[in-house]
Amino acid sequence: MSVTAAKGFTASGIAAGIKENGNPDLALVVNNGPRLAAAGVFTSNRVKAAPVLWSEQVLKGGQVSAVILNSGGANACTGPKGFQDTHATAEKVAAVLDVNAGEVAVASTGLIGVLLPMDKLLPGVESAAAQLSAHGGEKAAIAIKTTDTVHKTSVHTGDGWTVGGMAKGAGMLAPGLATMLVVLTTDADLDPETLDRALRAATRTTFDRVDSDGCMSTNDTVLLLASGASGITPQYAEFAEAVRAVCDDLGQQLIRDAEGASKDIKIEVVNAASEDDAVEVGRSIARNNLLKCAIHGEDPNWGRVLSAIGTTGAAFEPDQLNVAINGVWVCKNGGVGEDRELVDMRYREVHIVADLAAGSRTATIWTNDLTADYVHENSAYSS
Amino acid sequence: MSVTAAKGFTASGIAAGIKENGNPDLALVVNNGPRLAAAGVFTSNRVKAAPVLWSEQVLKGGQVSAVILNSGGANACTGPKGFQDTHATAEKVAAVLDVNAGEVAVASTGLIGVLLPMDKLLPGVESAAAQLSAHGGEKAAIAIKTTDTVHKTSVHTGDGWTVGGMAKGAGMLAPGLATMLVVLTTDADLDPETLDRALRAATRTTFDRVDSDGCMSTNDTVLLLASGASGITPQYAEFAEAVRAVCDDLGQQLIRDAEGASKDIKIEVVNAASEDDAVEVGRSIARNNLLKCAIHGEDPNWGRVLSAIGTTGAAFEPDQLNVAINGVWVCKNGGVGEDRELVDMRYREVHIVADLAAGSRTATIWTNDLTADYVHENSAYSS
Repeated sequence: MSVTAAKGFTASGIAAGIKENGNPDLALVVNNGPRLAAAGVFTSNRVKAAPVLWSEQVLKGGQVSAVILNSGGANACTGPKGFQDTHATAEKVAAVLDVNAGEVAVASTGLIGVLLPMDKLLPGVESAAAQLSAHGGEKAAIAIKTTDTVHKTSVHTGDGWTVGGMAKGAGMLAPGLATMLVVLTTDADLDPETLDRALRAATRTTFDRVDSDGCMSTNDTVLLLASGASGITPQYAEFAEAVRAVCDDLGQQLIRDAEGASKDIKIEVVNAASEDDAVEVGRSIARNNLLKCAIHGEDPNWGRVLSAIGTTGAAFEPDQLNVAINGVWVCKNGGVGEDRELVDMRYREVHIVADLAAGSRTATIWTNDLTADYVHENSAYSS
Repeated sequence: MSVTAAKGFTASGIAAGIKENGNPDLALVVNNGPRLAAAGVFTSNRVKAAPVLWSEQVLKGGQVSAVILNSGGANACTGPKGFQDTHATAEKVAAVLDVNAGEVAVASTGLIGVLLPMDKLLPGVESAAAQLSAHGGEKAAIAIKTTDTVHKTSVHTGDGWTVGGMAKGAGMLAPGLATMLVVLTTDADLDPETLDRALRAATRTTFDRVDSDGCMSTNDTVLLLASGASGITPQYAEFAEAVRAVCDDLGQQLIRDAEGASKDIKIEVVNAASEDDAVEVGRSIARNNLLKCAIHGEDPNWGRVLSAIGTTGAAFEPDQLNVAINGVWVCKNGGVGEDRELVDMRYREVHIVADLAAGSRTATIWTNDLTADYVHENSAYSS
C-alpha cells in the first residue's frame, strides 16, 4: 500500500526510458488534500544534488502538492544545467497537475555526474500523471529502485488515520542521513511544524543510525506529507510513534537489502556516558572494514571491536570494556572473556553489544558485513 | 641490509614456534653502541597492546639497547597477564644480553586477544641472541611478517653515516600511525631529542598519511635507534631528510603490499585553505569504500570523490571543486569536466588530484583499492 495507504493520496510508477534497461524509473506521489502540509529532512553532505537544493527550498514553505522521483540518474554534480532540469521537472509536474511549481518536491537517485535525459523525463511526467491511482503506491515504490533487489514499503494504522511510506536504498548508506529516498504520507490532520518535529525525532534514531557502508550520499531525501483527509488530529506522541515505527521498519528493510550483504549487524552500545558517545562508538564499529569482513567469515572477532572503540573520543577505560557477540561475552574487562567457540554465527542476524562501563546511556546502530559481492557490485556500477 | 646497514647493530630472525606453521616469528635487534640513543612513536589507538604500553615507558628514558619483536600474536587485549608476558620477555632479553630490561623495547603483531606462548617465546629469545649477526637485518625483517607477502627494508646512505630500517604491515593500515612495526637504525651520533624530532617530522608526512583500510591498530610502533658508531654527527636537516626518505620508502612498500590490493592510489589534495583541511579531505577520500571499489573496477568515478569531500568540514564551495584522475580533469567546477573515457586506468598506480580551490596548502594520502581478495583475506584471518 505504501504511500497510498493513507487517504488523500494517489501515486504512480512508470518506465519513462531514463534507465536504459527499460525498468520503471519515474514515480509520482500526489497529495489531493484537503491539507498540503509537509516536512522534509535532507542529506548533510555538503555536495548536494540539484533536486535536494530545490526540494529544501520547497519544504521551507511547509506545503507539498506532489513529489516527483526518478531513478536512473542522481542529477548530482551537474552544475547549473542540472538545477535547471530539476526546475523544469517541477514546472512540468505543476503544469500537468495544475498546481504551484513551488509546491512540487523533486528527488533523484542513480549515477552522479550525469545529466538526466529530459527528452524522456518530461514526457514521462505526463504518463505518470495519467496513471495516478489510489492503488499506485506499490508501483511508485518499484519505480524508485536502483540496485535495490526489492522495493520497500511500510504502513502503520492508527485510530482512524494512517502513516504509510516507501523507501529506496541499498548502498551509500550512512548516517546524516542514511542514503535513501523516502516518502511518507499520512491522512492525519496536522500542521507542517508538527510533521517536522515528528519526522526529525523519528529519523534521528532510525535512518540516522543505519550505516551500511559509511558512504554518505548527495541525494538523501525523506519527506512526510499530510493530506488531512481522515479529518483526525491524533495526539502528538501517538503520531510521532507511528512515524518512528514506519521509519524504523523501512530502515530495517534498507539494511536487509544492503548491497552484497550476507549478515545484518545490530550494534548496541550500552553504559555510555552520553548518547553522543554511544553513537560515536557504534558508528566506529559499524565502519570498521576488518570487523565487517570477520563477521562475513562468521568469526566473532572481538579484538576488532575493541580496536574500533579505541579510535573514538568516548569516555571509557580500555581495561573495563566488555563485548558480547550473539549473547556470549567474548571480551570482559578489555581481555579474553567467555569461550569464542560458544558464539553461534550461522544466522543472518548478528548482535554485538559494546559495554563502555562509563555511564547509563545507550544507542543502536545498524550495519551489515563487507563481502566480495559488495566489491563486485560497486566495481561495476559506474559513477 | 635493513636494520644492520648502519654500523653498531646486530640482528637476527628465527622461528620460535609462536606461529603454528613454523615460519620465522621472532626478531631481535641489538644496539652495540657506543651510544644507545632512541626515539619512538606509537599508535594513537586508546586500546593499546601490552608491548606498546611497555615500550612507551622504555622510550621515555631515551635509551634502547635492544628491540625484541614477535609476529604470530599481538598481545593486545590480554589484560594484566599480557603485560606480565611483555615484561618477562624484556627481562629475558636483558638477562641473555646482559643489559638493563628498562632499555629493552618490545613489539608484537598478529592476533588480538590471545596470550603469547611464553614457553616458546622465552627459549626463542636465547636462540635469537645466539644468532645475532651484523648481517642479520634481512632475517629480522622476514621474522616480523604476518600477512605481508614480502619483507620491507630500506637504506639511505649519508656522508659516512647510514639510516636503515625494516617494516611490517599489510592490513589495519590507517593514520595515527599507519599500523605497522618499524625499526630504524642509524650509526649517526645523535641524542634522543634530535632523534625524536626527526622521527616525528618524518612519520607525520609518511606513515601517518598511509591509509590502507581506515582501521587503526592497537600495536603500531616505530622506533629509531642510534649507535653513534660512525662517529659522525650530521647536520639536522640532512639527517631528518634521510629518516624521512627511509620512512617514505617503507610506507610506499606497505601500500604496495596492502592486503588484496590491485591498485595503489595516490590522493593529492591541492589548493586547500590549510594543511589540516587537505589531510581531512584526503583521508575522507581514502576511506570511501564505494570509490575504492570503483577504482578496483577501473572506473574513474569522480562523483564518489565529490561525495567524500562533501562529508568533511574543510573550506570549499561545491561548485568550485575540481578532480583529476590520472591527469584528466574529469570534474570541473563541481560538475562534468573532461571526457572520462580519456582516463587510462590500466596500470597499478592511480593518481587522484582533488582541487579545493580554497587556498594554497596541500597534502598527499596513500591508499589502495578495495577488492574481493581483501574481503577473503580478512574473513578468514581470525582475530
